[in-house]
Amino acid sequence: MTIVESSGLPADVYSAKCPTRQVIGHIASKWTVLVIDSLLQDGVLRYTDLARRIEGVSQKMLTQTLRGLEADGFLTRTVHPTIPPRVEYELTPLGRSLAEPIAALRVWAEDHINDIERARAAHG
Amino acid sequence: MTIVESSGLPADVYSAKCPTRQVIGHIASKWTVLVIDSLLQDGVLRYTDLARRIEGVSQKMLTQTLRGLEADGFLTRTVHPTIPPRVEYELTPLGRSLAEPIAALRVWAEDHINDIERARAAHG
Repeated sequence: MTIVESSGLPADVYSAKCPTRQVIGHIASKWTVLVIDSLLQDGVLRYTDLARRIEGVSQKMLTQTLRGLEADGFLTRTVHPTIPPRVEYELTPLGRSLAEPIAALRVWAEDHINDIERARAAHG
Repeated sequence: MTIVESSGLPADVYSAKCPTRQVIGHIASKWTVLVIDSLLQDGVLRYTDLARRIEGVSQKMLTQTLRGLEADGFLTRTVHPTIPPRVEYELTPLGRSLAEPIAALRVWAEDHINDIERARAAHG
């Protein structure tokens, strides 16, 4: 069991005040799943690559998601001093370790979509 | 690769119109993660058990989350004709298969919380 250093208490996502609860809130977002999984598959991506790959994401949501992931230490943002500047995103080792359970979630959704659609049709 | 029966197209969460995208949106929610993980650990739970276990969830959010998970075929809701009626929730086989990647996400968050807090402090 992990002890949270800042609180001295055991890590417990069921406790509203545990810092792990906030982490679950950040990770468990559709856009986070898609950004982390894209970077796992492609390595280094530019903002425009991500915007194109993740169909339907707004500029506001993508920017907000990337900033949150950077603050949590999941990715690095590198600005290359070209004209115009080239901004690249890449997973950190911490982000890569998160990418494994996230990819499992994506694969699960793709594998089970027909079961889910059948369940929905039966539910009416 | 899975073909989505309703669309005839390959399952692809990156496509805005693919039904898997909506599934990721449902699954990738803090409350979904906590409800599914609770039921994986405890088997059958009553509404009041879930409300107590998942500290900080509002009645509205819990009810909405449970209804969505029932419609997607992840859990069953059984009403026992006692006075007052006893309402119990349990994972379906589909829900149990989802519980594995979800538990991996919870364990990851608990294992890495100190790395994340250090990254945040360094980010300033």
